[in-house]
Amino acid sequence: MQGVDPAWLPDEVFRPIGTRRTLLRGSGPLVDTVYAEVAGACDRFGGRVERDASPGPFDLVLELTGADDGEAFAYERHDGRTTVSASGQRGLLYGLFHVVRLGEAAFRGEHRTEQHSPASPLRMLDHWDNVAVHPVMGQVERGYAGGSLFWANGRARGEPADLARVRAYGRLLAACGINAVAVNNVNVHATEAHLLTDRIGEVADIASELRPFGIRTHLSVTFAAPIVLGGLPTADPLDEAVGAWWAEATARVYEAIPDFGGYVVKADSEGRPGPFAYGRSHADGANMLAAALEPHGGTVHWRAFVYNHRQDWRDRTTDRARAAYDHFVPLDGEFADNAVLQVKHGPMDFQVREPLSPLIGAMPRTRLAVELQATQEYTGQQRHVCWLGPMWSEVLRFRPEADACVGELARGGLVAVSNVGDDPFWTGHPLAQANLFTFGRLAWEPDGDPGRILDEWIRLTFAPGDPRLHAGLRAVLDGSWRTYEKYTAPLGVGWMVQPGHHYGPSVDGYEYSPWGTYHFADRDGIGVDRSVATGTGYAGQYAKPWAEVYESPDTCPDELLLFFHHMSYGHVLRSGKTVIQHIYDTHFEGVEEVEAAREVWASLVDVVDPARHARVAERFEEQLRSAREWRDQVNSYFFRKSGVPDAHGRRIY
Amino acid sequence: MQGVDPAWLPDEVFRPIGTRRTLLRGSGPLVDTVYAEVAGACDRFGGRVERDASPGPFDLVLELTGADDGEAFAYERHDGRTTVSASGQRGLLYGLFHVVRLGEAAFRGEHRTEQHSPASPLRMLDHWDNVAVHPVMGQVERGYAGGSLFWANGRARGEPADLARVRAYGRLLAACGINAVAVNNVNVHATEAHLLTDRIGEVADIASELRPFGIRTHLSVTFAAPIVLGGLPTADPLDEAVGAWWAEATARVYEAIPDFGGYVVKADSEGRPGPFAYGRSHADGANMLAAALEPHGGTVHWRAFVYNHRQDWRDRTTDRARAAYDHFVPLDGEFADNAVLQVKHGPMDFQVREPLSPLIGAMPRTRLAVELQATQEYTGQQRHVCWLGPMWSEVLRFRPEADACVGELARGGLVAVSNVGDDPFWTGHPLAQANLFTFGRLAWEPDGDPGRILDEWIRLTFAPGDPRLHAGLRAVLDGSWRTYEKYTAPLGVGWMVQPGHHYGPSVDGYEYSPWGTYHFADRDGIGVDRSVATGTGYAGQYAKPWAEVYESPDTCPDELLLFFHHMSYGHVLRSGKTVIQHIYDTHFEGVEEVEAAREVWASLVDVVDPARHARVAERFEEQLRSAREWRDQVNSYFFRKSGVPDAHGRRIY
Repeated sequence: MQGVDPAWLPDEVFRPIGTRRTLLRGSGPLVDTVYAEVAGACDRFGGRVERDASPGPFDLVLELTGADDGEAFAYERHDGRTTVSASGQRGLLYGLFHVVRLGEAAFRGEHRTEQHSPASPLRMLDHWDNVAVHPVMGQVERGYAGGSLFWANGRARGEPADLARVRAYGRLLAACGINAVAVNNVNVHATEAHLLTDRIGEVADIASELRPFGIRTHLSVTFAAPIVLGGLPTADPLDEAVGAWWAEATARVYEAIPDFGGYVVKADSEGRPGPFAYGRSHADGANMLAAALEPHGGTVHWRAFVYNHRQDWRDRTTDRARAAYDHFVPLDGEFADNAVLQVKHGPMDFQVREPLSPLIGAMPRTRLAVELQATQEYTGQQRHVCWLGPMWSEVLRFRPEADACVGELARGGLVAVSNVGDDPFWTGHPLAQANLFTFGRLAWEPDGDPGRILDEWIRLTFAPGDPRLHAGLRAVLDGSWRTYEKYTAPLGVGWMVQPGHHYGPSVDGYEYSPWGTYHFADRDGIGVDRSVATGTGYAGQYAKPWAEVYESPDTCPDELLLFFHHMSYGHVLRSGKTVIQHIYDTHFEGVEEVEAAREVWASLVDVVDPARHARVAERFEEQLRSAREWRDQVNSYFFRKSGVPDAHGRRIY
Repeated sequence: MQGVDPAWLPDEVFRPIGTRRTLLRGSGPLVDTVYAEVAGACDRFGGRVERDASPGPFDLVLELTGADDGEAFAYERHDGRTTVSASGQRGLLYGLFHVVRLGEAAFRGEHRTEQHSPASPLRMLDHWDNVAVHPVMGQVERGYAGGSLFWANGRARGEPADLARVRAYGRLLAACGINAVAVNNVNVHATEAHLLTDRIGEVADIASELRPFGIRTHLSVTFAAPIVLGGLPTADPLDEAVGAWWAEATARVYEAIPDFGGYVVKADSEGRPGPFAYGRSHADGANMLAAALEPHGGTVHWRAFVYNHRQDWRDRTTDRARAAYDHFVPLDGEFADNAVLQVKHGPMDFQVREPLSPLIGAMPRTRLAVELQATQEYTGQQRHVCWLGPMWSEVLRFRPEADACVGELARGGLVAVSNVGDDPFWTGHPLAQANLFTFGRLAWEPDGDPGRILDEWIRLTFAPGDPRLHAGLRAVLDGSWRTYEKYTAPLGVGWMVQPGHHYGPSVDGYEYSPWGTYHFADRDGIGVDRSVATGTGYAGQYAKPWAEVYESPDTCPDELLLFFHHMSYGHVLRSGKTVIQHIYDTHFEGVEEVEAAREVWASLVDVVDPARHARVAERFEEQLRSAREWRDQVNSYFFRKSGVPDAHGRRIY
């Protein structure tokens, strides 16, 4: 643990509690966790904590009032005393961290009573961690923060320092509201398949470290498990022996991990096995696993990321963006209650700008979970500052129909792909911690203001706050997603990345590939016609008003124009600029914004601890180099194609 | 050895000898090799062989007439008897294989006396084989024929079957005239560095298997060896301790391998260490190694493949094509007699079409070796038929100046990067064996007719010949290089390949890279201006008349036009076609030619053994798929850029 960054829980944030007198009422393992937190704070800062009936007076009372499994808590402020009460231990733990996040403000004011509860019962991180290092993808697929917290050298980490690190991780997650972790990659390779059976003990060891923080452990499994592990001749979900095998395997999982959360499955996707091989539907596949989990209270998360990844680029009728909707909407109502369909927020794959997946809102009789990507695969790989709070907030507040926003429609929960590894700063780029924190807080409260969450993160992480530091961090982070969008992906065009690793520009990198990811740029224009009238019909997958808004270039928002329409370079946007001039301008601006953010960061050298400052400064150098490369390649590409000079005469190569 | 293809030495080709009476005169290890060949043939076919003085009459006399190390031999035909005589054992071995290649014709006619000797004393194959599997490059860098013949599992292969395979390889090489093999990759990684010192025994074991076939073994070494192996603080070639270390290391090599050929060095290239680090010249570096080798009769092959591989694509003044000339011509006359400068035949890197390297002919006081690439890195990776004989013949017959051709200027020898691995057919694609054979035969006789060599290869490999089979193979192979050029690289533009592995099209794959490999295509035209008047000046590196021929688009040959000039799509070629129509036409034609060749091959199903026929047929499917991909991507790319429709209205996507 030595040398590991405390992230948003530095000792200092416990000072307001640690200097006061606290009474803790209730018992149970998570109450013990609460006690340990308060007692630790008091040890450091000279306060006092008592359990159960003890003589007063107290500044803070933490009270378990029931024995349920709830996560809600009440925060009250009366008579100079702060009281947190909850009917469930998990609620009490979240209440404690609420007080921690409030800081001194938790002990100010009078006559306040607040009820807090999460919008969703499942707030989950999916780790794409491999047990055995994958020859191409490494220890952590799409990981940019070193190795895995959980796995090393082909085994679960077991050293005391490693387990302490897992506990510290659980504590950070609890402090931002996350309550579930899937511990291995959704692409389940040969070694990882065995976690389900003979290696479940390793998963149980991880679960033991996360349990005191209210976190349930989930496991990614391969649909082919009955064959590769069970020796059966088939994995047909309607085969009785297959169902029996899963039931028995699942019962054994629960013997090892009584509060096990469930399975995550990527089936029939990018080469993974699935029910299609047996002529069965995805509902058949998911329901079989749901049946095995049901007696134990578990859930199957079935990913909707199913598309043809062997598409012919010459074929302009097939549209990958349509795939999830086309595959799954016909199955609405067929999924079991404990089967959750896990849908990526956009129709493609975590590009810096996508419209909302039309699947969300189109399956009213199915529990959907919405999947976000904290790990910055397409957003700078934690070498670039890119705070995703505004993007996620836009997603979660988006109203596919008039009567519900995404945050409400995600009845199956919110999931993010983790951005954490064994890096001392957890996330490689220290400022990428803000993404993890923001995800947890938005998962609790999807309509929360991301700016307020960012303020909270800054106050905690950089406590005690310095106004110049706070303002500087806001300046660096606030617009960083839009900055990244500017120098990479204009007007909804994605995929102009280097194939494979996805870092850095390659405008045609995926243009003639089988991945279904094209921009169709020619000498006259660019973009994908996804209208119903003349294109792939994708726009018609939306409910009104969006189907109409997206159908016409006249109403489609600028930032998604080229996602929905093929436009000439000379087309004039709402902004008054032409498409080509917009491309040039945003790319120049994006680099200028990185330069400015780098200057701001440099100016904070006296108010940020040296190691953290140096790490971020070093990443800014790479971000700037890379942003210039993006600018020059994208601008040169479109200048060479369009022949239109920059209106401001800037250098294009 | 079981299941390994006999290539151009099937038993049948020994029938003319094996059915006759042979007298062998002389002694020595290579004479023993000759004896074993003839005796084996007689065992199979009922003939007879006697050593030294024996009663006649004989049909064939093989006679060692001296004790030198020469490779020349005389072939005579008098009084119904064929006589091969040589003053050196190696000459006698080559004479035997001459008789084998001639077949029955060796025993026909009268009053013939022919003297044969190789044009160059060094005819070498460089194996880019790694001992330890490289995480990116694998066991054999740019290898398309399975694993290494020499190395497996981090060690030299030592099983009897493996050693028999190495001997079989040596025998095949001797039969086409190759006399030197470098056994490891020029990119010398950590494991391979040790072959020079503590692991020289493994090299010696390989050398023992190759020696009976007149083949000397060479080793690629790292310039940093004194540091990484010797523990010295420097590898400065002018440092006395460094020179002493190399002298001692080299002496130990010769203790293990008395006929060791020498070192191959890639220095200051693509990240390899070299003399530049110490402010020394490449002559300093090469001469130090030459001095260490000189007492033992060894040679250092110093590769001239030195260029800036971290070029900024925005910089249009730097020209990678200039690099070898600029680096090395100033050093002419400074290299030791036993230092050979090994120059790739073109200025770039084995593209399907390049002009001759201007270095060749420009260093009259330096021994140059010309390096060709048998392994089909950029020419279809042994999944495509691409017989390189015509390209190599064009290279070797090219006259940089009026008074000498390349074959004559290559006083240091001819080298090819090997295309062989542990594949049962040796070369992955069975027809790629023709490249290996052709290289050996052209290295012996650079002005030889490649068509005649191809006939020879067909007669040997497919003995006994069937006229339909022979004609079919000629049809498939004859034009295959130009066919490959047609569907890949128009008018001298190279590098439109997928980065990294170099298989398949990616028109912009290297366009914005640091590798110095650009085509500068825009909406108006394409090509690199390398003229003296307005471009990088590269054309001026040639002697007259070539400097003038290449300087102007009016005189530059069509097939190199875009290598030397940036031309508009509408420019009319000598052929009468525009540049853009040429691009379209050649890409359609190239695919049609592949389709035709595939049909020819299919028609040979009854006259080719099933395994070989099936392997080639399977590769033709991939070649055709890939050729269509090339056609469609290249045509689409240039149509999207130029906006010019195909004059014949064919489908462009």
